[in-house]
Amino acid sequence: MIYCDIGNTSVDLFENGTRTKLSVEGFDPHILVDDVYYVSVNAALNERIKECKNWHDLRALIEWEKYYPTMGIDRIMVCEAVPDGVIVDAGSAITVDVMEDGEYRGGFISLGIRSAEEAYARLSPALNVSFNFEVDLTIMAKNTPDALTVGFLAPLIEKIESLGKPITLTGGDARLLSRFLTKAVVEEDLIFQGMKKLIEKGVKC
Amino acid sequence: MIYCDIGNTSVDLFENGTRTKLSVEGFDPHILVDDVYYVSVNAALNERIKECKNWHDLRALIEWEKYYPTMGIDRIMVCEAVPDGVIVDAGSAITVDVMEDGEYRGGFISLGIRSAEEAYARLSPALNVSFNFEVDLTIMAKNTPDALTVGFLAPLIEKIESLGKPITLTGGDARLLSRFLTKAVVEEDLIFQGMKKLIEKGVKC
Repeated sequence: MIYCDIGNTSVDLFENGTRTKLSVEGFDPHILVDDVYYVSVNAALNERIKECKNWHDLRALIEWEKYYPTMGIDRIMVCEAVPDGVIVDAGSAITVDVMEDGEYRGGFISLGIRSAEEAYARLSPALNVSFNFEVDLTIMAKNTPDALTVGFLAPLIEKIESLGKPITLTGGDARLLSRFLTKAVVEEDLIFQGMKKLIEKGVKC
Repeated sequence: MIYCDIGNTSVDLFENGTRTKLSVEGFDPHILVDDVYYVSVNAALNERIKECKNWHDLRALIEWEKYYPTMGIDRIMVCEAVPDGVIVDAGSAITVDVMEDGEYRGGFISLGIRSAEEAYARLSPALNVSFNFEVDLTIMAKNTPDALTVGFLAPLIEKIESLGKPITLTGGDARLLSRFLTKAVVEEDLIFQGMKKLIEKGVKC
């Protein structure tokens, strides 16, 4: 059994604890012979997957009324992995969601770290500086890199901590954010854990 | 006596409580015959102002060791206006600064509201939505516009409030932010108040 997360640029496979990242370009879904359970945001690839009997779209198993119609499928999957707690998926955007007794309590979306840096740089050449990840977020800044880093990260980190639940971090910037969210657990394969749980639940029903 | 704040695109004049905004393009500093006290980030216009004996650069009066070398001159001016409190200047960026007993305690820089909206839109067509300024920032969101608005504004507003000092709001988005910072005072002419105080202090010294 293979779990698969399809984005706009990459196909992320997970099988027996091993993760393999492939490029969407040139990817042929027919090359996989085992059963594949997938989520996808890639309309073009979805069309080709329809021809493959061994590919199973996990959208069919989602209880959509728990979430909301425009919520990203990846975000729903990481929520499915954590029945109680705050889930932070730090990628191109940073999604923050709250689950309680298996119910979705809502969430919010921040910019990702790189997109925030780029947005500052667009405002003024003076703000075209890299974040300082060594900064102490509890102290008001007295130089430009710290002022931007504190400005972007301190409110976000404090808001996440104020939610008062155990925090699970995932996504490409999970390790970086874990420097500031010291009690958070990093789970790099959280999306696949969510897919697995959803399948198990679906089978039980 | 005229106070003048020169940006990259506009020349903002303040005289006897009246504010006049002019375009930098085509602006000739010689047209003003009264004494002008100014701050400027516009290098090209500064060259032409040098020829005018009635224009006085307020940079000369700033105690730079109180602030930091790359700090924006507008930001220093609004700090000079408020000896004790939090100063929020909400423009293309949102600067947040803390003053205590006339001393600068540091600050941070967030993206401006429009630049944040634009940065979300760049991430994905699904995030190309306007903020919902009617949203309750204390509630986790369950739709995309609310998720972005809460994601950008809730951490920022809570961080500003947590600083525990009286808040003065200025800048183009001051009124908008005052919806969420209900105890804040809006002072649209704060930069000119700071310039006035700096001149009075300079004269006393």
